[in-house]
Amino acid sequence: MKASEIVKKFGGTLVGPDIEIEKVSPPEDATPDSLVFLFEQGKEKEIRTRAGVLVCKEKPSVDVAHSYIIVSDPRKYMVQALSLFVKETRLNPGVSNEAYVDPTAKLGENVTVGQWSYIGYGTEIGENTVIYPHVFIGDNVKIGTGVKIYPFVYIGNDTFIGNRVVIHSGTKIGTDGFGFLKTQEGYLKIPQVGRVVIEDDVEIGANCAIDRATIGETRIGKGVKLDNLIQIGHNVTVGEHTVMAAQTGIAGSTKIGKWVMMGGQVGVADHLEIGDRAIIMAKSGVSKSVPPRKIYEGYMARERRQYLKSRSLFDRLPEFVERLKRLEREVFGNETENTEK
Amino acid sequence: MKASEIVKKFGGTLVGPDIEIEKVSPPEDATPDSLVFLFEQGKEKEIRTRAGVLVCKEKPSVDVAHSYIIVSDPRKYMVQALSLFVKETRLNPGVSNEAYVDPTAKLGENVTVGQWSYIGYGTEIGENTVIYPHVFIGDNVKIGTGVKIYPFVYIGNDTFIGNRVVIHSGTKIGTDGFGFLKTQEGYLKIPQVGRVVIEDDVEIGANCAIDRATIGETRIGKGVKLDNLIQIGHNVTVGEHTVMAAQTGIAGSTKIGKWVMMGGQVGVADHLEIGDRAIIMAKSGVSKSVPPRKIYEGYMARERRQYLKSRSLFDRLPEFVERLKRLEREVFGNETENTEK
Amino acid sequence: MKASEIVKKFGGTLVGPDIEIEKVSPPEDATPDSLVFLFEQGKEKEIRTRAGVLVCKEKPSVDVAHSYIIVSDPRKYMVQALSLFVKETRLNPGVSNEAYVDPTAKLGENVTVGQWSYIGYGTEIGENTVIYPHVFIGDNVKIGTGVKIYPFVYIGNDTFIGNRVVIHSGTKIGTDGFGFLKTQEGYLKIPQVGRVVIEDDVEIGANCAIDRATIGETRIGKGVKLDNLIQIGHNVTVGEHTVMAAQTGIAGSTKIGKWVMMGGQVGVADHLEIGDRAIIMAKSGVSKSVPPRKIYEGYMARERRQYLKSRSLFDRLPEFVERLKRLEREVFGNETENTEK
Repeated sequence: MKASEIVKKFGGTLVGPDIEIEKVSPPEDATPDSLVFLFEQGKEKEIRTRAGVLVCKEKPSVDVAHSYIIVSDPRKYMVQALSLFVKETRLNPGVSNEAYVDPTAKLGENVTVGQWSYIGYGTEIGENTVIYPHVFIGDNVKIGTGVKIYPFVYIGNDTFIGNRVVIHSGTKIGTDGFGFLKTQEGYLKIPQVGRVVIEDDVEIGANCAIDRATIGETRIGKGVKLDNLIQIGHNVTVGEHTVMAAQTGIAGSTKIGKWVMMGGQVGVADHLEIGDRAIIMAKSGVSKSVPPRKIYEGYMARERRQYLKSRSLFDRLPEFVERLKRLEREVFGNETENTEK
Repeated sequence: MKASEIVKKFGGTLVGPDIEIEKVSPPEDATPDSLVFLFEQGKEKEIRTRAGVLVCKEKPSVDVAHSYIIVSDPRKYMVQALSLFVKETRLNPGVSNEAYVDPTAKLGENVTVGQWSYIGYGTEIGENTVIYPHVFIGDNVKIGTGVKIYPFVYIGNDTFIGNRVVIHSGTKIGTDGFGFLKTQEGYLKIPQVGRVVIEDDVEIGANCAIDRATIGETRIGKGVKLDNLIQIGHNVTVGEHTVMAAQTGIAGSTKIGKWVMMGGQVGVADHLEIGDRAIIMAKSGVSKSVPPRKIYEGYMARERRQYLKSRSLFDRLPEFVERLKRLEREVFGNETENTEK
Repeated sequence: MKASEIVKKFGGTLVGPDIEIEKVSPPEDATPDSLVFLFEQGKEKEIRTRAGVLVCKEKPSVDVAHSYIIVSDPRKYMVQALSLFVKETRLNPGVSNEAYVDPTAKLGENVTVGQWSYIGYGTEIGENTVIYPHVFIGDNVKIGTGVKIYPFVYIGNDTFIGNRVVIHSGTKIGTDGFGFLKTQEGYLKIPQVGRVVIEDDVEIGANCAIDRATIGETRIGKGVKLDNLIQIGHNVTVGEHTVMAAQTGIAGSTKIGKWVMMGGQVGVADHLEIGDRAIIMAKSGVSKSVPPRKIYEGYMARERRQYLKSRSLFDRLPEFVERLKRLEREVFGNETENTEK
């Protein structure tokens, strides 16, 4: 691919020769045939070997590349330009003879179903959707258009999936919620008869688990992005455009607002509400509801400012205890020493 | 399904017309053809549109449904009634031609083996057990009767699984324990030659990992219920009727008692003992053994009452430090101010 | 297997009759046909029934076995001897007719490819490598010799895997990194065009997720051992011989040194550096870089000694607050009581 082709597609000004680009590289691994992105001026020092083409806001003073594409927002430009370098696995088009598609299932135009994938009774799949090999889709599932479902994904009966959803490998959707009734003899299973709804433009990482509702719905709102190994309990609602980093878990019936951001390994207890645009820092344990737009952090999460204040004093506890002892000596004299544990 | 059919099956008194029920709904989404459960009087205010049939302890004063089923314990009644609404995927009965069943394997009456499932050498499966498509079961595995194993489950060689066990999609049982011997040149693998035993009536969620023992057994006791994404290390024992919420992990050789309850994202270190009926609150880190019937909580878990006391004082640390400074000013005068960091 | 055969293979001195060994047992479950290992003198008291053959440093004073193999390092001996008792699943050798191997793929001598496994365009697999049933390997993947890949593993396009690597069931390698650009209308996906490199002798547990780099590489160094359910973000580097216990997660672009040890459920934030031979205790949250050889612990991890000191004072906070109040009463008299919250 020539540098000029990228410029023709996405704009920007090419300065220098029209280099042939073979690959995209991080600055430190640049080679004369690679495309490199520079987000901050100054970072060009990381480029050891002259890059082929450097996308940047302004040409650096040092000559670190053979050519430059000058753009107003290198980060946004990268999002576009990288799409030219994505390589999807070359699946055979159409429905594989080795897949099982129930006779009652309805597939739209140009649907791909890979080898050994199972499409259940009454399931409908919209046009241009790609089902990789090794996918299990149960009965009465509705899947929109332009969806991509990677290998080893399980989609339980009655799940609804919108358009342009991407589900990465190994994620399970519509598995039973964790509901049991305690009795003297043991736990009785509460049958989980609800479903999961995934709205448009959601992307879900690898090896997640999203449980069906006991009754009603577990719902993942439009544009939500979930990282890997995330747990979403039954009857949880995740609002539009919320993002969660890896290994986070949301317990049953909690309602998460829109545009919320959660770090990795966060745990949110059941039946809480997390307000719109709240931010939950990584590894926080959220045991009470969080108001909109607040930033929470901590093992028992509190407002971040408050948490960090207590936390910095926690680090200084040995000092405070020394000062407490000094006061005691001064006020009570030596006799306190003996009562000290 | 008519309301009267439910009453005939599970008891209760039908008050009002014999409505045709199409589905089960949560109170807030009730419709005239839906069955709704009311656990607490007062909650009927959540019902905006008149429900078809309301299961409740006594008829609410407001007329929120077309009919009522009056029962003594609505929660227990729900467990029974919901079973009528569960829809299992309509698998083809019997053993699929596209499955691999080793000639030495023994299958009981009425066993289902879905497409592309693998049943290894010498493996035995009891009657009425359902193996979904895409299941891998290794050699010399024993599986009881009435078991249900969902897609993408891996069951390693020599695993024993009792009766009526349910294993949800993506769970791996009998994978190697994490055992390595450190040497100057690197880590040597300690071969993991033990096995996993899953007793009767266990239910295991999605995408869990239960490792085989190094030597001997990893054992999950009768009636244990595990949520999703749980890690059980090698040689762990989990006692009867213990429950664990999602993303909890138990390190090697730890012994967990009976009727223990663990919240989500709990971590328990290796070689500990958790006593019968102990409760470990969500996200706790357990680094020492827990006596029976105690409630533990915290990042380094302590008895809950003790933890919460320290924890609430942690939140007030800024105040205490102010009070400490005030004392210092009073006792030592201004000179202390200078030594303050 | 006779005791003498083990001695012939791995050395040691056989004392007593040449017993026929049927299995390996933990001390407490020893039987007259079992091989038992004794790491510490004194632990032989756990042996209730006389073992067949006991591997130990010196013959215990009590006669707990029928025969003894006397060795200098029982733990190292175990690593060797156990290898005789490992039972791999008896897969049909060669490439299954029910697998899909792209015509452009190149397979070395003596490669096994199980049923329903997918080998993509241009992928190369070295000799003696075993691909279990139900594995998905994308395009242009390079896999070395003597590798073992268990069922339900996904390996994305362009991944490089060295020699003697073991990947346990359900692990996903080369899935997209979690990269999105926030805009007013929602998050734009940053295409993930980098790859994953797994060096020689790495072992990866079950249900892990290792993301491909945005640009460049995610790299797992030689001899690294990862437990189950671990998350490795995009562009992470893990140095040689580092080990991580289950459910640990490493956020994007973090560089982890060599011979690092991490406990379970550790979280490491993005763009940090963890120095060589550092130790991170279980469940720690690492929010800043860690120097080489340091031991870190805590929710916001600090040097272990410092953390434990603050932590033990945290447990004693109620006592310190009482002492603070006593001082206030002494210094200020009763009027302070009223200001007390």
